[in-house]
Amino acid sequence: MTATTLNDLFIHALSDVYSAEKQLTKALPKMARAATNPELAAAFTTHLEETRGQVERIDRVVEVSELKLKRIKCVAMEGLVEEGQEQIDEIEKGPILDAALIAAAQKVEHYEIASYGTLATLAKKLGYNDGMKLLLATLEEEKATDEKLTLLATQELSEAEVGK
Amino acid sequence: MTATTLNDLFIHALSDVYSAEKQLTKALPKMARAATNPELAAAFTTHLEETRGQVERIDRVVEVSELKLKRIKCVAMEGLVEEGQEQIDEIEKGPILDAALIAAAQKVEHYEIASYGTLATLAKKLGYNDGMKLLLATLEEEKATDEKLTLLATQELSEAEVGK
Repeated sequence: MTATTLNDLFIHALSDVYSAEKQLTKALPKMARAATNPELAAAFTTHLEETRGQVERIDRVVEVSELKLKRIKCVAMEGLVEEGQEQIDEIEKGPILDAALIAAAQKVEHYEIASYGTLATLAKKLGYNDGMKLLLATLEEEKATDEKLTLLATQELSEAEVGK
Repeated sequence: MTATTLNDLFIHALSDVYSAEKQLTKALPKMARAATNPELAAAFTTHLEETRGQVERIDRVVEVSELKLKRIKCVAMEGLVEEGQEQIDEIEKGPILDAALIAAAQKVEHYEIASYGTLATLAKKLGYNDGMKLLLATLEEEKATDEKLTLLATQELSEAEVGK
């Protein structure tokens, strides 16, 4: 990354979230299979479809803003996905793993909420108005997914044993 | 991590955020030194003090809930800090780096917002009411810091050159 202008920073941030979304399309099917609660599994599957749409939306931002993405790997999402995978490997399937999966997924959503918030602000400043609208559409989807996960957490926890 | 109960999950999540906050106390002074805008540098310094207070608050949660933390390293925060450090290394000091630092810091804040949200929910379910209150106090601080950074981003960007 050698960002000397806001436009460079925008391209870097967009390339980063592109990598993040791509990593997520590989992680979500594993999370859906690991979930016990059918509603949670369905939420992950729905979000997988949304995530694929968000990747396409980034392609459209690139197209309408006449940019070229860089090939970078989002190390933060790598860490988040690794945390989720550790939990799948180490916790037995059931309500405790479900609660852990929800927590991991909410960290992912918040990473994306921060990323798309920044991207929309930069797009506005750079005059990429069509790009900004696409980014704001994804931002709203991420916020809605986070809220859905909060609701599922409450339901999930009401069924889980405390086990102190 | 071998979580078989919600209590195990709570201890794991609390140990993870403890590691995250400790890492952050090392990263924030570097971010403050890298910032050009004095308001941004001051915001990082203020948040460093808050973060130290949040570490102490976790110590109090552990004490009042009669728990024992595990020694783990939060890999997600490691990735987030690494991203911020890359930007400090590769972008010249000035408004572009400031914008990049704000973006990096907002990702960190959102990681913590997701973490403390989960922790407060788990604490409530587990009947750790005093612990829950402490965790909610930190959650509010993290949200306020995120909002402050959003405001600073808008100011910062109004001064930055577009440079397309």
